[in-house]
Amino acid sequence: MIGTKDRPLWLHATSDGSAALFLIPPLTRELDPQVIFDINVHLHYRMADPTDILLQIEAAELPDQPLHHANIDLSDTAYFARTLAEDGIGNRIWMQVQGDFVCDYTSRVEVTRPVPDLSNLQTGPLHLLPGDVFKYLMPSRYCPSDEFQSYVFEEFGHLSGGARVVAIRDWIEGHFRYLPGVSTSQTTALDTFVQRQGICRDFAHVLITLARASAIPARFCSVFAPGVTPQDFHAVAQVYLDGAWHLVDPTGMASADSIAIIGVGQDAAHVAFLTSFNYAQLLEQTVSIDVPNL
Amino acid sequence: MIGTKDRPLWLHATSDGSAALFLIPPLTRELDPQVIFDINVHLHYRMADPTDILLQIEAAELPDQPLHHANIDLSDTAYFARTLAEDGIGNRIWMQVQGDFVCDYTSRVEVTRPVPDLSNLQTGPLHLLPGDVFKYLMPSRYCPSDEFQSYVFEEFGHLSGGARVVAIRDWIEGHFRYLPGVSTSQTTALDTFVQRQGICRDFAHVLITLARASAIPARFCSVFAPGVTPQDFHAVAQVYLDGAWHLVDPTGMASADSIAIIGVGQDAAHVAFLTSFNYAQLLEQTVSIDVPNL
Amino acid sequence: MIGTKDRPLWLHATSDGSAALFLIPPLTRELDPQVIFDINVHLHYRMADPTDILLQIEAAELPDQPLHHANIDLSDTAYFARTLAEDGIGNRIWMQVQGDFVCDYTSRVEVTRPVPDLSNLQTGPLHLLPGDVFKYLMPSRYCPSDEFQSYVFEEFGHLSGGARVVAIRDWIEGHFRYLPGVSTSQTTALDTFVQRQGICRDFAHVLITLARASAIPARFCSVFAPGVTPQDFHAVAQVYLDGAWHLVDPTGMASADSIAIIGVGQDAAHVAFLTSFNYAQLLEQTVSIDVPNL
Amino acid sequence: MIGTKDRPLWLHATSDGSAALFLIPPLTRELDPQVIFDINVHLHYRMADPTDILLQIEAAELPDQPLHHANIDLSDTAYFARTLAEDGIGNRIWMQVQGDFVCDYTSRVEVTRPVPDLSNLQTGPLHLLPGDVFKYLMPSRYCPSDEFQSYVFEEFGHLSGGARVVAIRDWIEGHFRYLPGVSTSQTTALDTFVQRQGICRDFAHVLITLARASAIPARFCSVFAPGVTPQDFHAVAQVYLDGAWHLVDPTGMASADSIAIIGVGQDAAHVAFLTSFNYAQLLEQTVSIDVPNL
Repeated sequence: MIGTKDRPLWLHATSDGSAALFLIPPLTRELDPQVIFDINVHLHYRMADPTDILLQIEAAELPDQPLHHANIDLSDTAYFARTLAEDGIGNRIWMQVQGDFVCDYTSRVEVTRPVPDLSNLQTGPLHLLPGDVFKYLMPSRYCPSDEFQSYVFEEFGHLSGGARVVAIRDWIEGHFRYLPGVSTSQTTALDTFVQRQGICRDFAHVLITLARASAIPARFCSVFAPGVTPQDFHAVAQVYLDGAWHLVDPTGMASADSIAIIGVGQDAAHVAFLTSFNYAQLLEQTVSIDVPNL
Repeated sequence: MIGTKDRPLWLHATSDGSAALFLIPPLTRELDPQVIFDINVHLHYRMADPTDILLQIEAAELPDQPLHHANIDLSDTAYFARTLAEDGIGNRIWMQVQGDFVCDYTSRVEVTRPVPDLSNLQTGPLHLLPGDVFKYLMPSRYCPSDEFQSYVFEEFGHLSGGARVVAIRDWIEGHFRYLPGVSTSQTTALDTFVQRQGICRDFAHVLITLARASAIPARFCSVFAPGVTPQDFHAVAQVYLDGAWHLVDPTGMASADSIAIIGVGQDAAHVAFLTSFNYAQLLEQTVSIDVPNL
Repeated sequence: MIGTKDRPLWLHATSDGSAALFLIPPLTRELDPQVIFDINVHLHYRMADPTDILLQIEAAELPDQPLHHANIDLSDTAYFARTLAEDGIGNRIWMQVQGDFVCDYTSRVEVTRPVPDLSNLQTGPLHLLPGDVFKYLMPSRYCPSDEFQSYVFEEFGHLSGGARVVAIRDWIEGHFRYLPGVSTSQTTALDTFVQRQGICRDFAHVLITLARASAIPARFCSVFAPGVTPQDFHAVAQVYLDGAWHLVDPTGMASADSIAIIGVGQDAAHVAFLTSFNYAQLLEQTVSIDVPNL
Repeated sequence: MIGTKDRPLWLHATSDGSAALFLIPPLTRELDPQVIFDINVHLHYRMADPTDILLQIEAAELPDQPLHHANIDLSDTAYFARTLAEDGIGNRIWMQVQGDFVCDYTSRVEVTRPVPDLSNLQTGPLHLLPGDVFKYLMPSRYCPSDEFQSYVFEEFGHLSGGARVVAIRDWIEGHFRYLPGVSTSQTTALDTFVQRQGICRDFAHVLITLARASAIPARFCSVFAPGVTPQDFHAVAQVYLDGAWHLVDPTGMASADSIAIIGVGQDAAHVAFLTSFNYAQLLEQTVSIDVPNL
């Protein structure tokens, strides 16, 4: 049996108790739609023993990315709990599964977020940072920003705020090779900085690290974006400038107006799409994103 | 000029605008006082250039550690802002200083917190963890818990919950050498685990790391404790068991009923007593703690 | 065209210049054969561009492991050079290949080496160490022994010499899990020590590291050994006790009297079976070892 | 009693058996003296327990740096042994001391080595590398060159041989800050590469690492050089080009014609001036170098 206290209106349990259905009435808004896309995720894992898992794969509902509809079908679970994810953006689902775990998620997202011109944005005075943004100035597991203070001063010391972020982004995009298979779940930004290769997760970690070393708050975003190759979950960074969070993709594959945010956190550890507290065997995993307007 | 919007009743600016005085009326409570102690901190730094600093040195006011009185005198600053610290425990002070920075902090704290018998406490089901506790299961800059899952299974797999925490604490206390000077601000729990030596910060990082690798939420606490040698700011861990946070000191120097918490965070990076965003020269720093009842 | 100045008698170039054949006359010796085994190695790689490679896959000819016969067939190369490998044990082959690189190596080795009782062997006085053994006391890329001095003192301080090596070997064998796929070519002994899992290379690195931290010289050996699962190149350690090098296998899979040494070095970096100075695609690699007497 | 089998003619034991005196008759040679300098080293350590130490502080006698005279006075030792150091360059002295250890070393060295124009030197074909040079292509404890292959290809891929070494040297000299106190004996080239600061040892490690990642053999040299600030033991790199070893100082403080080599090795671990196998307390250490011609 599946249930959720947090958002009961969204839940329509199927007759066999094995699925959760979320229906959201279409929004009437006046903004011109920017990009609308359809997301399909299929996961199939196998767990020999009863295994606690934490799932974070749904596009968050946010003012600048309303959901037209969303549905998640999950195989049987010993329990089900939805909790708010980091900074109140998106949800995490706790389950306990054994045997085959299958998840099918579909949604239609409209992204109304404009693409900012980062180079004109400023870092405000540090003492005006909101209390809950401060932690994004600090080093984290995969983003040891404390090691890079001399480096950013040396290389980017003539720039500040958004202009520095743009220079860092361009430098990463120009000098790093997108190469699946060379990094692991333990690869840090320091490893990637030296090796100059990796995947979206690694690129985002480097940008976040260099931003924090520059005293610019930065966080990790797990996202959906059309046109990413190979099509999969994608990861980008957000930097805090002029009092708001702004998306930056150091791989150059996605722009802010066609990104659907799943969740945010200090680094990849905090927004894994699947965290399993026991051994889980991957059988199949596909992510597809279609832009029906195109 | 110094000011704070958050807790205006505490602030009595001195005539020259260079100091902040906090007075709290004595509390009338019925709990037997457990331990009362007087804290004095004196800091003296010198900054050549205008330097943003973040100060976190005041004992937090908490239900189980009421403050009888507290006072902080600070030298001149270009601005002053108080913000709530991590998890709403304690405060941080933002300042911008140039030249000599002097801080004198005094307070009387009463600690009414009982010492729990950790070995009887349980880890609850993961899906009942509050959303804001989840991040304390994840690896952080100085606590790469993802590396230690095989180790804790191998060495402590026969124990769970509080009993496991006690075994980890005893193992650290029994096998690690308290040795100032061998670790730096970049030393991680992995370094300390291998080198078997360090200071309170390092001991706490190891305990936190092994707890998180055991799927027990754990966080870092910056504290005051009488009897710590050498007398200085002290650091311990907190673990989340039976729905609450419990103090553990793997150095064996302090117990829960004589610890005054300053702040909490994922690891030392989040609760440094002084974070300086430019070069700061240490001239003097003393911490003294007296227990007047003794 | 293939040639070698070092051991010209071994070389019989085939008519198309693409192969090297080594024939060694049977030895007449009076030692009882201990273990005789037949080694077959097949390698198939593909290099898009002209690629310098260094091959180290032949059983070394040593007093306690005479070769009955040996043969190596190599595909075409722009040049060919044989050099003595580290400490004069075994050979390395330099080649420059493009396109398909195929290597077939077969040999029969007799191992007459006794199995020592390590626990009775002593570390001699340091100042009597031969000058060329000293480097095996020092940390190397994968064996950061300088980090482990407190640890070995704490855990093995009551033992010395061979008795300590035996205790370290037994501890590794008893507490580490042999698990292919969790380590990479960049995994160090420190990583493995913490994660408690890996393959033969990783186990050997940990033993070498803890021996060196104990001021016992230790080096890495690339070897062939029958009965290793999965059958592949194997790696063990050698420690220097009572004035000689002694084999130790911390995986427990092989003993000194059934190990054929290929080469030795400070750690895995120095005795890789194939070092490629450009991109090489693995197509096939098999190692088989038969013991005809059994 | 002190003695040495290796170079008995150099030894004049003092009456109390506590010192070793080396006298070398002046050389008659026809080369114009390039630079002559007088070296004085004074060490004073204290060891509570009997402690094996390894000393490597004497200028090596080499064809391009003849010694006019040399003298070393050592306090009492339980034994004394001289061994050839790495690659047969210079000596190491083994001693066992307890209580106060005092060493006074003086020598006059003439450096006749020309300063090569590195940019015209070539890397020869790999297969012609001497067998004992190969290890200087491999990563070592403080020089994890395997991590930097993409980086050197990306940044210096348009250059080869000596021209690449010059570009790397200039880049380090131009972008790194010489800053005592920020690195420790465990700092690797990877740390320094990221932090962009350190001392001569760290600068040399970075150059060696980037050379090896470029398939150019490189080793670490412990040296004396006049004009180094602060005056102390100095460290530089040697790269192997056109069949010979060439000195490079990435700090820019010394040039090949005014450097007296003490010893060489894979990295700092192999040529420490003092390696102590027990706790040693530093009381005093001075190095002075005078150029009498100036």
